[in-house]
Amino acid sequence: MKDNINNKEITSRDVDFAKWYTDVVRMAKLATYSNTKGCIVFEPNGYAIWEKIQSVLDRMFKETGHQNVYLPLLIPENLMKKEGELINGFAPEAAWVTIGGKKELDEKLCIRPTSETLFSDYYASVVKSYRDLPKLYNQWCSVLRWEKETRPFLRSREFLWQEGHTVHATKEEAERETRQMLDIYNRFFHEYLAIPSIIGKKTDKEKFAGADYTYTVESLMYNGISLQSATSHYFGQRFSKAYDITFLNKDNKLEHVYQTSWGASTRMIGALIMVHSDDRGLVLPPKIASKQVVIVPIKDTDEVMEKANYYANLLNDKGIVTYIDNSNKSAGFRFAEAEVNGIPVRMEIGPRDLEQGQVTLARRDTGDKIQVSINDDMVSTVSKLLDDIQNNLYNRALERRNKMIYTAKDMEEVKKIMNTQPGFIKAMWCGSEECELKMKEIKGLKSRCIPFEDEQEHISDTCVCCGKKAKEMVVWGIQY
Amino acid sequence: MKDNINNKEITSRDVDFAKWYTDVVRMAKLATYSNTKGCIVFEPNGYAIWEKIQSVLDRMFKETGHQNVYLPLLIPENLMKKEGELINGFAPEAAWVTIGGKKELDEKLCIRPTSETLFSDYYASVVKSYRDLPKLYNQWCSVLRWEKETRPFLRSREFLWQEGHTVHATKEEAERETRQMLDIYNRFFHEYLAIPSIIGKKTDKEKFAGADYTYTVESLMYNGISLQSATSHYFGQRFSKAYDITFLNKDNKLEHVYQTSWGASTRMIGALIMVHSDDRGLVLPPKIASKQVVIVPIKDTDEVMEKANYYANLLNDKGIVTYIDNSNKSAGFRFAEAEVNGIPVRMEIGPRDLEQGQVTLARRDTGDKIQVSINDDMVSTVSKLLDDIQNNLYNRALERRNKMIYTAKDMEEVKKIMNTQPGFIKAMWCGSEECELKMKEIKGLKSRCIPFEDEQEHISDTCVCCGKKAKEMVVWGIQY
Repeated sequence: MKDNINNKEITSRDVDFAKWYTDVVRMAKLATYSNTKGCIVFEPNGYAIWEKIQSVLDRMFKETGHQNVYLPLLIPENLMKKEGELINGFAPEAAWVTIGGKKELDEKLCIRPTSETLFSDYYASVVKSYRDLPKLYNQWCSVLRWEKETRPFLRSREFLWQEGHTVHATKEEAERETRQMLDIYNRFFHEYLAIPSIIGKKTDKEKFAGADYTYTVESLMYNGISLQSATSHYFGQRFSKAYDITFLNKDNKLEHVYQTSWGASTRMIGALIMVHSDDRGLVLPPKIASKQVVIVPIKDTDEVMEKANYYANLLNDKGIVTYIDNSNKSAGFRFAEAEVNGIPVRMEIGPRDLEQGQVTLARRDTGDKIQVSINDDMVSTVSKLLDDIQNNLYNRALERRNKMIYTAKDMEEVKKIMNTQPGFIKAMWCGSEECELKMKEIKGLKSRCIPFEDEQEHISDTCVCCGKKAKEMVVWGIQY
Repeated sequence: MKDNINNKEITSRDVDFAKWYTDVVRMAKLATYSNTKGCIVFEPNGYAIWEKIQSVLDRMFKETGHQNVYLPLLIPENLMKKEGELINGFAPEAAWVTIGGKKELDEKLCIRPTSETLFSDYYASVVKSYRDLPKLYNQWCSVLRWEKETRPFLRSREFLWQEGHTVHATKEEAERETRQMLDIYNRFFHEYLAIPSIIGKKTDKEKFAGADYTYTVESLMYNGISLQSATSHYFGQRFSKAYDITFLNKDNKLEHVYQTSWGASTRMIGALIMVHSDDRGLVLPPKIASKQVVIVPIKDTDEVMEKANYYANLLNDKGIVTYIDNSNKSAGFRFAEAEVNGIPVRMEIGPRDLEQGQVTLARRDTGDKIQVSINDDMVSTVSKLLDDIQNNLYNRALERRNKMIYTAKDMEEVKKIMNTQPGFIKAMWCGSEECELKMKEIKGLKSRCIPFEDEQEHISDTCVCCGKKAKEMVVWGIQY
């Protein structure tokens, strides 16, 4: 058995970021490629992150009155096509079932790439009156999109997500919902994933197929590439007209409902890796780590093991998920393994430590070690340390990201920035798709979002691209 | 608005059980049919039951060392076919994707009907040494089987389930796992679903395609029809040989792993309905109900509402999930709605009650009402009531089921029983498939299971069918 695996085998993220990313995914045993082309196997360590994400988001959704449902995986072609823009948007990526029960089907069935169509069809059958509204439903499921190039968590043919679909009696209420869900995602990114984000509206070119408008949470990875991390769409009456979802309003008149959808996916695991992790492997915010503390007994003497068990029970009882790694490997190997796996805190207990009445706590985020007296209140010491790590990860990511936010007044400035270090570029825009397409010629720059009013800044008077009068400030970036 | 909906619209279960069942599903808003043929929409009330089932089973799995993973939805045909019996078993029910990204695929992909193939392929790639064993993985997902006749929860083309797949270094360990998981299911049925079950081994004819043997949990519905409710399979080395899952054992020799799988599905929701519910709608065991207590204020005076809020907070704080139904409907309507939805306890608070210093508690299972003084310890009173309901449901189901367990010595006795009231028939069997097929001629009777040694009974010396020397006692029944 090798005694020093792990972090030595990880490519440096400053040398080859893409290679580093797949090394971390592999070494931390988050996922592997499967023999189903373009699809991954979510291994226990990767799936545990998703379970944690699910449990927090699910609670946030339920606290705001949402309920979970489950709609079919397969969508009949005819149902899929009722709204024109959505099918146009998703047709190139659709996978179709054509054979079932040994027979060629009369109508082919699309594996859901997203479920607006099915939800609309369902709502049309159950919504009759304003008293039935709103319906605030969410679904946890997998979706399929026939991607050509794939990368674990970031882009694969099948991924896991949640998709909220709501219908409302008024435009105002539906728009409030759209914004509320964006804010929930943003809060989740901040408070749990420890990832700072920029929120705003997508340009018409970048919005979801079939949406009146799309709100987005955009975050920046370590390498300056941006990631669309969660989206919330306002549909107005587009689907309700196509699928005939009507209700008798308070004036006893038939009206079409107002609709939203919003989603976030296992892509967030990719964001976690690319924002926080380092050359020693995975780094996880304590609030998202399924195991928060590992206790490594340096020697398994009775005294050491007794202390290890004592602390494991003590911390677990207080809700700090702790395990003992007493495997038959060197301490160095076990340290490295816990680091690769992103365990936030490591407690080292050795006979010499105990003689001096102390144990050692090591932080995964900074590598710092502190000695703690065994007479200290260990629960509060570890709790505080976990909080510190959570906050430090956010602040570190924020500081790094802020250094990669640039402003540009014209294309020369844009090019100059992009030739050094990519990031978010704040620049004014006239509102024309033509200019968006021109920006794309520079290393694929796309508009990430139009920040809301309170985050709008005045960079210059004129469009960064055409020089005509600017309408608003847009955040640009290269996307995953 | 009608004032007395609900339970009056439910067909009596003694008049037309099948109609009663679909009435309950519809009125309790558990599920509706969707426009994807053979598939249902799990509505909030139905999905909430599934979430509760998931949370309990998931905890039980994790407590016994299992971890969750997620493997792809799609299985390449070639991978699906590596083990002959499984594909033979599932081919008639398979759905195939033949088009992806607007192109005809070179190899068609099967939507998973079950995932032995993918797990085996995955294990073959990650298991190298006895040190990697056991792998105790579980997956929560949906599966697809192209059924012809469907019925909500009991049989539909797509359903939700969990499938555990484990690999072990020894036969003994794998067999222990197979039995352990059966026992976990059985305990879950008893302690949570309040459903008494018979456990045992399937005959070769009835075992899972590709298994060495299959253990099963069999329960009996109100109408005497039996339901295969959960299964646990021992595969031996059948898949590990087909998929070449080998490991270096402690003697440094290459050996094929020993494998199990086990699963339970949303079919359990069907069992819950058909065992406990009645002509007034759904009845749920308190441990599975997502809402345990509804408080119905008879009038919304300040005093009544204050008390309602007080009790709602008090009970919720103690983990008893309670809500207030203060909707703009008559008390009778609200009572009926809570009954249809299977809320275990209803607390009625009216001004007259309060004048007399009391509130009324109504049990969903028996309909009994009791007056409780507002000076009583409400938390302990309600807790005890919920326990009583949980126990009563189990005992009631057990008593009813026991009345429907018959013994038969020959075919005349079998026919006589089946002409009156179906149920479980205990009868001796010679072990031949021929006799199993003969039994099937009597209203479709099938062997449900061969109970384990401690549950074996000696009914007679000879096979119920052919009269030759009997090998063992088998439980027979008509199945859903």
